[in-house]
Amino acid sequence: MVEIIKKIKEMQKRAESFRRMGKRIGLVPTMGFLHEGHLSLIRNIRNDCDVLVVSIFVNPTQFGPGEDFKEYPRDFERDKKLINENGGDIIFAPDTEEIYGKNYLTFVKVRELSEIMCGRSRPTHFEGVTTIVAKLFNIVKPHIAIFGQKDAQQAVIIKKMVNDLNFDVEIKISPIVREKSGIAMSSRNTYLNNNEKEQALALYKSLLIAREEISKGERKSEGIKEKMKNCFEKYPDVKLEYIEIRDFDTLKDLNHLKGNVLIAVAAKIGCARLIDNIIVNV
Amino acid sequence: MVEIIKKIKEMQKRAESFRRMGKRIGLVPTMGFLHEGHLSLIRNIRNDCDVLVVSIFVNPTQFGPGEDFKEYPRDFERDKKLINENGGDIIFAPDTEEIYGKNYLTFVKVRELSEIMCGRSRPTHFEGVTTIVAKLFNIVKPHIAIFGQKDAQQAVIIKKMVNDLNFDVEIKISPIVREKSGIAMSSRNTYLNNNEKEQALALYKSLLIAREEISKGERKSEGIKEKMKNCFEKYPDVKLEYIEIRDFDTLKDLNHLKGNVLIAVAAKIGCARLIDNIIVNV
Repeated sequence: MVEIIKKIKEMQKRAESFRRMGKRIGLVPTMGFLHEGHLSLIRNIRNDCDVLVVSIFVNPTQFGPGEDFKEYPRDFERDKKLINENGGDIIFAPDTEEIYGKNYLTFVKVRELSEIMCGRSRPTHFEGVTTIVAKLFNIVKPHIAIFGQKDAQQAVIIKKMVNDLNFDVEIKISPIVREKSGIAMSSRNTYLNNNEKEQALALYKSLLIAREEISKGERKSEGIKEKMKNCFEKYPDVKLEYIEIRDFDTLKDLNHLKGNVLIAVAAKIGCARLIDNIIVNV
Repeated sequence: MVEIIKKIKEMQKRAESFRRMGKRIGLVPTMGFLHEGHLSLIRNIRNDCDVLVVSIFVNPTQFGPGEDFKEYPRDFERDKKLINENGGDIIFAPDTEEIYGKNYLTFVKVRELSEIMCGRSRPTHFEGVTTIVAKLFNIVKPHIAIFGQKDAQQAVIIKKMVNDLNFDVEIKISPIVREKSGIAMSSRNTYLNNNEKEQALALYKSLLIAREEISKGERKSEGIKEKMKNCFEKYPDVKLEYIEIRDFDTLKDLNHLKGNVLIAVAAKIGCARLIDNIIVNV
């Protein structure tokens, strides 16, 4: 049965003793309310480690003012059952007081990469993410941690933080898991009604169009973006935030597609802000 | 004979293997050009660890534009001899490229505490310090690290960073070592000519006056600061930057002295910027 740890000192002590025994620790950081996407992370890291820790913490510092921190869905008992079934060994589930205490002051920021794409509409988001991930690395002491490609910008930023700050942690990126309709799995899909779920298909459809254009030989970002924009016009309830075509390692803006290319979209539908992407090797 | 490691990956591998063997790693982070102050750090941590690592790295990110990064004194062979004589096991001495590479983007910042006192005239200094210390912790993986009380604000900021980011590292603070004259040991004392060295006594003299006032029963910061300022008037070549009376744990400004009180001064003499302090338990 999966074990639950709520205190930082206890988690550190356990982590240290696993390391002393030569056991390899794997970490899946989550905000809980697990869906198939999270479960695929758990399954995809299971064979890379001896002890699998899943953290559950809805991290307030990565939500901006007016964002959905309070409404963010939570269901610990369901999460516990799912983690157990999928092979997790430990759930690290601290409360906010345990993580940020009183008068919290220290932040980790990856400059530039945190300010583009989603960073434009969420200026403090990635700083919150890198700060909590740095803390979790120091608490859980993993040898390997896994993140979803769904949050592609986050994945690039975390890899950059790990490299810059010399965290001795291997980072694995796991493919996007989609619902039958094609929309990317997200805890925020629970905010959508049936009509909105149909409209939300716009994101994935636009990415399929991009993939088709590329397979036809298109290499100019402008041409691809134009076709994607046209796709969104058929979905009047979708407020497109961005279409970006960037290098997946550096997040450099690409005029011409080359190498490992990230094509990413963000849009608002009702009160949900959704993101999706594909990575194409050109 | 002390061993020299220049590469991050090698240091991490060695650190990991020491930890696996159950050996306790101690770290003395320095910018080299060691004086008695540094050597006292080495001696004061020697009995707290099995493997003593002294890092030597003149960290560019903690120098502001126009500051003395280029002029900062360096003498590796002398440092090596001194570390060997004083019981160091490993010198970690990477070059700038190894530490910051190309396109370095990630910084650790302790807000508020980095902006007061020395942070006013050196706005990016402490961010540079916390960033390099975080990196050294991830590279050397120490159980304990020691810092000098001489850089009192730095000591408080590093303790706050360790606490906030959950670094599993014990922080030890070591008393100030003074030259015979009374001035605090500093690599920057090499910038002073004989006349300036005499003038530099102003800092310590003012602190002795503060201590005397307190022993006479004075508890108001204003009264103490006034007497200290008067002392500086006798040293016309000394440009006083600040006199601060703050709580040594939180750096909160104190009107009335209570608890662990830090009395700190900063001043410019010629091209040297010097700091000094005393800690008084009231």
